[in-house]
Amino acid sequence: MSGFGRIECQKLRSKMMSAEAAASLIPSGSVIGMSGFTGSGYPKAVPTALAERAAAARGAGDPFRVSVWTGASTGPELDGALARADAIEFRLPFNSDPVLREKINRGEMDYMDMHLSQVAPMAWQGFLGPLDLAIIEVSGVRPDGSLIPSSSIGNNKTWLDRAQKIILEVNAWQNEALDGMHDVYYGTMLPPHRVPIPLLRPDDRIGEPYFRCDPDKVVAIVETSAPDRNLPFAPPDDAARAIAGHLLEFFRHEVARGRLPPSLLPIQSGVGNVANAVLTGLLESPFEDLTSFTEVIQDGMLDLLAAGKLRFASATAFSLSPDAAAFLNANLAKFRDKMLLRPQEISNHPELVRRLGCIAMNGLIEADIYGSVNSTHVMGSRIQNGIGGSGDFARNAYVSIFMTQSTAKGGAISSIVPMASHVDHIPQDVQILVTEQGLADLRGLSPRQRARVIIQNCAHPDYRPGLFDYFARAGESSYGRHAPCLLDEALSWHQRFIKTGTMRA
Amino acid sequence: MSGFGRIECQKLRSKMMSAEAAASLIPSGSVIGMSGFTGSGYPKAVPTALAERAAAARGAGDPFRVSVWTGASTGPELDGALARADAIEFRLPFNSDPVLREKINRGEMDYMDMHLSQVAPMAWQGFLGPLDLAIIEVSGVRPDGSLIPSSSIGNNKTWLDRAQKIILEVNAWQNEALDGMHDVYYGTMLPPHRVPIPLLRPDDRIGEPYFRCDPDKVVAIVETSAPDRNLPFAPPDDAARAIAGHLLEFFRHEVARGRLPPSLLPIQSGVGNVANAVLTGLLESPFEDLTSFTEVIQDGMLDLLAAGKLRFASATAFSLSPDAAAFLNANLAKFRDKMLLRPQEISNHPELVRRLGCIAMNGLIEADIYGSVNSTHVMGSRIQNGIGGSGDFARNAYVSIFMTQSTAKGGAISSIVPMASHVDHIPQDVQILVTEQGLADLRGLSPRQRARVIIQNCAHPDYRPGLFDYFARAGESSYGRHAPCLLDEALSWHQRFIKTGTMRA
Ligand SMILES: CC(C)(COP(=O)(O)OP(=O)(O)OC[C@H]1O[C@@H](n2cnc3c(N)ncnc32)[C@H](O)[C@@H]1OP(=O)(O)O)[C@@H](O)C(=O)NCCC(=O)NCCS
Ligand SMILES: CC(C)(COP(=O)(O)OP(=O)(O)OC[C@H]1O[C@@H](n2cnc3c(N)ncnc32)[C@H](O)[C@@H]1OP(=O)(O)O)[C@@H](O)C(=O)NCCC(=O)NCCS
Repeated sequence: MSGFGRIECQKLRSKMMSAEAAASLIPSGSVIGMSGFTGSGYPKAVPTALAERAAAARGAGDPFRVSVWTGASTGPELDGALARADAIEFRLPFNSDPVLREKINRGEMDYMDMHLSQVAPMAWQGFLGPLDLAIIEVSGVRPDGSLIPSSSIGNNKTWLDRAQKIILEVNAWQNEALDGMHDVYYGTMLPPHRVPIPLLRPDDRIGEPYFRCDPDKVVAIVETSAPDRNLPFAPPDDAARAIAGHLLEFFRHEVARGRLPPSLLPIQSGVGNVANAVLTGLLESPFEDLTSFTEVIQDGMLDLLAAGKLRFASATAFSLSPDAAAFLNANLAKFRDKMLLRPQEISNHPELVRRLGCIAMNGLIEADIYGSVNSTHVMGSRIQNGIGGSGDFARNAYVSIFMTQSTAKGGAISSIVPMASHVDHIPQDVQILVTEQGLADLRGLSPRQRARVIIQNCAHPDYRPGLFDYFARAGESSYGRHAPCLLDEALSWHQRFIKTGTMRA
Repeated sequence: MSGFGRIECQKLRSKMMSAEAAASLIPSGSVIGMSGFTGSGYPKAVPTALAERAAAARGAGDPFRVSVWTGASTGPELDGALARADAIEFRLPFNSDPVLREKINRGEMDYMDMHLSQVAPMAWQGFLGPLDLAIIEVSGVRPDGSLIPSSSIGNNKTWLDRAQKIILEVNAWQNEALDGMHDVYYGTMLPPHRVPIPLLRPDDRIGEPYFRCDPDKVVAIVETSAPDRNLPFAPPDDAARAIAGHLLEFFRHEVARGRLPPSLLPIQSGVGNVANAVLTGLLESPFEDLTSFTEVIQDGMLDLLAAGKLRFASATAFSLSPDAAAFLNANLAKFRDKMLLRPQEISNHPELVRRLGCIAMNGLIEADIYGSVNSTHVMGSRIQNGIGGSGDFARNAYVSIFMTQSTAKGGAISSIVPMASHVDHIPQDVQILVTEQGLADLRGLSPRQRARVIIQNCAHPDYRPGLFDYFARAGESSYGRHAPCLLDEALSWHQRFIKTGTMRA
């Protein structure tokens, strides 16, 4: 890397420096808004340099810690490196880095897990406090100082607008053909000045392709050339294929009844292997002319686009395996007009999810027999990732689907439990529950009706009798019998797992 | 009652008959959409006649049961009478009738508790099945067959559009000046045809003052002259006044910091005594030019309107004590231009709640130390009322406030518990928690930070040490320490209450 190749703004060239020099501009205690959404578009050099600085300071007995706000999860050079250096004191709104997760679950730092659509508006509301600095990866700087976004948008617009100072990383690894694939909406406001968001279809353009950026706030520009880092997807296993099969049957059934159009409705697909397998399942389905209004474009979406099954995908980030990222990089021109990245407050906006009537498909950790879903806290206390956008989509979807294997940890854990040990999604927001065992259509059912269908259709046969037994006994002696529960037994399966390593009696 | 006074449509006059005759047209097993939202605008004669018919059938060994869909709760002549006759087999989306509640909690009937904004769109989606009949109270029938709505709108538009047959009750007790006070929006559609809802301010009119009605579907018209029945509010007690005081101080603080405009933002106020006390508190506050975008207009709102503090109130129903209803009936002309009733899918629409930036204030049954809120299930299993519109507002509000006394049942129950026995509102949707003890501002906090503030500021002093003790021990030995919890103790307070009648150790 050298020259001014991607930094076309004369005025800003003078701010070019090394990552170390840029990191040295950041005082301990800073609140920093970083780019990044999944392993895409996060700054790769300055956070690593900052982690080195923090580790050195710590070695010298001088703790150096910052608050980090992002779009969602990032890559190991950011969350991993900073966590390892014990340099994060407060983190929002999402994390999936294993090193950082461990720190959070040891109680060594504070983590606030937020609805992803609400991060930007809440930052504007002001109660999160001032944002000292933004560190944003871009794929280029235009002559007028505006910025060509990278492989994710996330909250970058908001961080650029709200931060006192800005550090840019210009990543030459990002494909130049990204230029023009973004739609940055500048019409959001605080109430009482909010207006309808003028988007009617997933492919509507409502904004500008570039970030506005006040050049006087830019204190450093660092050139990088490093790949995004997303994990490869596991090839669909039997369970994932079974889940996909149940879902496709459900879609066919709904289309046959006239309750879904033949091209379905815009699909939102959570991240993870199961979600990816469902997309792969759609490849061989009869559905055509699909669209997607979602958070991330993962491998399965790309396959659907390539096969001509998917007409358009709107998201806030790419989340592609290294192979798929390489394929896309090599063929971006072909896909350019079929994809669009937006700020996450738009990709996940409740107004738009409701208007478009998204089909939401998200993963879960456990569901209880009444349909409350835990997406975040293993055994009620240990954070896995965070709620992410699942609440933005589930509550406003046309059909809200949650899916999981019926057991975890090799069968030692039942994903269907008497009572969820933590609740992220209430039964009203969980309409379809699918495991490899089958699909429970919970729409229009009372709690006791839901329990029967969930246990019968979704629970693993090893745990089904235990659940039916619990439900029957609860029906006899519960305090109330609207949603019968035995409070002294409701969490006993989790207790048994913690004590014995298995939920099996 | 006699003559055609309020039935100006020639064609429909021939359908006039007694309530008994109308009830005899309804077969057992019918799915019926009824008007009614709180004790306002529900049909009063036909449900009572239907209950008598059902009781007689039951006496003759011939069970007669129907499914009842409404706007929200109704009055004793509807839910109470039908429940007493054991005539309801399935009920949605909300109930607060004590007789019906008892039946549900004995497990004798099915009740589906829904987000109130979602009832109409879900009915259109079709999975709830066909709607055989609508029984709708109106305050008049116009010459062209269109209907002048009554004191609530609820889901009436949807029931009239979707039902195969229609029975109308024309209630002469309702003030004729209601004519023109409604705004029935006919622009909703199913996706992919949905468009932005063109409402920018609480007082915007976006619809028509009357319901459209196909006269060929009308099978009976019954004249009535019976009052709405809402319970009187308790005068604010010390606890309610303390809660109101904490909230007003919070509002003043937010205005001083520039985080709320001086006239605040549109207020949503839940039903109940505490909510009413807060409105009364606003009477003596410095805030002027207030607006309200809410579900129901209760006594406190009327006082604010009368005092000129509140400029405009938008809702889907009146929910006034008998005294306030009489006062409004006598003075409706004065208030006509300051109030508006809308369909509940509009009064509670997430798109509008988010756009307007409502200040949501709702009651709760219990909250846990991390800020999960239970609004519905006493001891995790016994339904109190239902989630109502609280989820529509809480997730999309500018500030989501939940309020309660710190204890219930004379101090035997702590409203702040280690773990909620049921969750309706997740911590992300609970920003401010208030009891008479104080206010917890949870915005921007991690779970452990939230716990400290909730226990310190909101718990009753009798229960505070027990909560701090639990939290400290959980912090030592929890499975994960992001949101520490002791699974074998988390619900022990509830278990103790069930066993001993008190949560006190
Ligand atoms: C819930 C979620 C973790 C499931 O992820 P997934 O990749 O589909 O599922 P996996 O089966 O691979 O599970 C992931 C991990 O959780 C563990 N897990 C899953 N269910 C579990 C359970 N019931 N109890 C304990 N652990 C469980 C798995 O063992 C695995 O742990 P490991 O990484 O230590 O092996 C994931 O969907 C998530 O983070 N969701 C919340 C955010 C979200 O929905 N985002 C998309 C929205 S737009
Ligand atoms: C939660 C809710 C029941 C509180 O109502 P309220 O009138 O403010 O509060 P009250 O203190 O009078 O409580 C109502 C009842 O619940 C009981 N209760 C309250 N807290 C309780 C607790 N922690 N444990 C057990 N019972 C409790 C009260 O004792 C009272 O019972 P009673 O009628 O047998 O005396 C009410 O707000 C509600 O139904 N909310 C859900 C729907 C909603 O929010 N609608 C407005 C939205 S738009």
